[in-house]
Amino acid sequence: MNVIEVIKKKRDKKELSHEEINFIVSAFTKNKVPDYQFSAFLMAAFINGMSVNETACLTEAMLYSGKVIDLSAIKGVKVDKHSTGGIGDKTSLIIAPIAAAAGVPVPMISGRGLGHTGGTLDKLESIPGFRTDLSLSEYKNAVKKCGVVLIGQTKEIAPADKVIYSLRDVTGTVESIPLITASIMSKKLAEGIDGLVLDIKTGSGAFMKSMKDAEILANSLINTAKAFKKEVIGFITDMNQPLGNYIGNWFEVYESVLVLKGETQGDLYELCLSLAGAMIFLGKKASSIEEGIEISKEMIKNGKAYNKFVELVKIQHGKVDVIEDPGKYPKSKFSDTVYCKNGFLNSVDNLEIGMAALELGAGRMTKEDVIDHKAGIIFRKKIGEACKKGDVIAELYSDSKTKLTAGKERLMKAVEYSDKKIKSPKLIKKIIR
Amino acid sequence: MNVIEVIKKKRDKKELSHEEINFIVSAFTKNKVPDYQFSAFLMAAFINGMSVNETACLTEAMLYSGKVIDLSAIKGVKVDKHSTGGIGDKTSLIIAPIAAAAGVPVPMISGRGLGHTGGTLDKLESIPGFRTDLSLSEYKNAVKKCGVVLIGQTKEIAPADKVIYSLRDVTGTVESIPLITASIMSKKLAEGIDGLVLDIKTGSGAFMKSMKDAEILANSLINTAKAFKKEVIGFITDMNQPLGNYIGNWFEVYESVLVLKGETQGDLYELCLSLAGAMIFLGKKASSIEEGIEISKEMIKNGKAYNKFVELVKIQHGKVDVIEDPGKYPKSKFSDTVYCKNGFLNSVDNLEIGMAALELGAGRMTKEDVIDHKAGIIFRKKIGEACKKGDVIAELYSDSKTKLTAGKERLMKAVEYSDKKIKSPKLIKKIIR
Repeated sequence: MNVIEVIKKKRDKKELSHEEINFIVSAFTKNKVPDYQFSAFLMAAFINGMSVNETACLTEAMLYSGKVIDLSAIKGVKVDKHSTGGIGDKTSLIIAPIAAAAGVPVPMISGRGLGHTGGTLDKLESIPGFRTDLSLSEYKNAVKKCGVVLIGQTKEIAPADKVIYSLRDVTGTVESIPLITASIMSKKLAEGIDGLVLDIKTGSGAFMKSMKDAEILANSLINTAKAFKKEVIGFITDMNQPLGNYIGNWFEVYESVLVLKGETQGDLYELCLSLAGAMIFLGKKASSIEEGIEISKEMIKNGKAYNKFVELVKIQHGKVDVIEDPGKYPKSKFSDTVYCKNGFLNSVDNLEIGMAALELGAGRMTKEDVIDHKAGIIFRKKIGEACKKGDVIAELYSDSKTKLTAGKERLMKAVEYSDKKIKSPKLIKKIIR
Repeated sequence: MNVIEVIKKKRDKKELSHEEINFIVSAFTKNKVPDYQFSAFLMAAFINGMSVNETACLTEAMLYSGKVIDLSAIKGVKVDKHSTGGIGDKTSLIIAPIAAAAGVPVPMISGRGLGHTGGTLDKLESIPGFRTDLSLSEYKNAVKKCGVVLIGQTKEIAPADKVIYSLRDVTGTVESIPLITASIMSKKLAEGIDGLVLDIKTGSGAFMKSMKDAEILANSLINTAKAFKKEVIGFITDMNQPLGNYIGNWFEVYESVLVLKGETQGDLYELCLSLAGAMIFLGKKASSIEEGIEISKEMIKNGKAYNKFVELVKIQHGKVDVIEDPGKYPKSKFSDTVYCKNGFLNSVDNLEIGMAALELGAGRMTKEDVIDHKAGIIFRKKIGEACKKGDVIAELYSDSKTKLTAGKERLMKAVEYSDKKIKSPKLIKKIIR
């Protein structure tokens, strides 16, 4: 097989065969196809798209560039969740313990934050001592003992994804539905799961700004999961404002604990119930999502979800004292407050809220940046909510006064008020199965 | 300016500005943009195309990556011809001396053969001692003294074209009208010309198989030449059968001499008269192409064209004894003959004829192959011509018996006969100005 012929075929909008996709991906991963040929292929795939079949083949080639973890020795229907990311999206920290408490094993491999979105690994690492770099045998052990584990991508997992993503990042080929699908699914399918819940975010703080694009991505992910005979449920959910009220790594752990303890409600709580409900349903511990939601509520009420979280922190070497008494956690040196105008909160440029948190030190601009776990924003209002002059809309925390000023300015420009009461955006826009 | 943003803009079908094209091309040429980014750009340009403006900007960026030769010190309107190449296409060797004999300076920078098409430089180098690697000052001197020069691309001429073409060759981005246009025109415009005659071949032996594609390429080349304020005439001509009867490097020099001496007529002679006529018209030594054709005939009849060719060979260090007495040229060790069937020659797979000549040793499969200048084919019949069993249709020459057999088999499969008389293809299909 000739790599130039494969590139030309994709260039000419013809469908590639299983063998052709496997050939070019595995040759590239083994350094037998140079970067400049693979980037030409990526651009052709970006512009001309890939069929459902091609996307599944690409996912498979990337998946089998590494290990597929065998969890068959562990009882139960293993289920994970994947979110396309957003501002204040800490659901993994909440729903993984809920589902595990309900008896559904949750083997989760997550990512780090880059740009305006946070990453589950970064959030967990804000807990002193918490290790996300478990080996595959520690990973298996944790699922077996605790029923839940949350680690980062190891070098055994889909190594093709790592090299392909690095190349996409510098060749303008990131925002492609089939390439995104294969990147996500090759890692998820390597986890050893039987089922997957997808949370596709849409809105100003999401990767997919429009509902239409979110649906296309959701369908692509679902089709690919089905091609691998996985049970899958996709949620399209709102990302026009922060999810919950806390943004920033430790802040999000703190808010997760509040939800797990049943000490707060609102959009974050609601979404977690639905996602965990779907996981429990896919894990065959409920006969419907609705029943799964009821079980989730129960797991919070009876303390089992919170206890599972504490168990998870312990098994991954985290210190639980700050979980049990968050007052012990170090505080940012500086803070500032933004006050409301009179009226109703009309809109939030959610991307800008994420950028403001990044500015404070809560995120990474480049892969090399070091995160300040304490830094972040408490965003007190929701779209449609009545605001009075003098109400606090946001508190900002940072170790740097300059960063605090820059973050505050950014945040102030990102909120708009209206005289008329407006509707709050629908949280769960669509469920696709 | 950011290279990824430029790539994304082309990827998203937006028109690039002069600055953006200049930035990415010059950064790549200076090794500041890596291959993998430029190949993504090339693929985006291939698939999404480039406007007339973008093509002119790309040409300009490639042109000014090197030197533009200044021939203003030489009197007269300097004119060159470019052909997209084909089987037996040796017109450059004939029309350059004709036009020069008529007083039009012809500064010509040509290429080598690769695959089924021959190259002017290879043909000239079949003349013992002939040097195509003149320096730019020798080049200028030759135009001044002799009125005509035929050299290869020097390192000063459009170096961007060389690196871009190498990358296109291995990334499936060769067959793109704007990229081909910029590649051709950046070299031609560097020659110091005022006018250009284009010979766009179409048919089974041409790069552009269909008339439609040939017209698109012709218009793209013409638009670009006009953007640089050059006078230009485009011919679309037939390449469904070999041009003339001789294929192979020395064979084509031999046939060129026959035409220049007025010792043969037919399609090659006819086409040369038209192309040279157009050059003489653009060079302002005739008031119309028709008058230019009459002058060309005269230059052959009065011996001036042949004498100019001999002068050219001498000034480029070639031995003229084999020109004056071709019998002195070494012969191939082996030869074979293919005979006709009864009927009329119906069609020729001209690409296969070119491949047969290549098989005999007359061409290069890869850039490293060494050409056998003596090897080649004399193809005696034209489409539509009556054939009798026993007539010779082709003679093949090679130093290798194995190659001879392989070439013969290929050639025999490439010709088809018909019972009914058919029309011969029109030689000059269209003239675009």
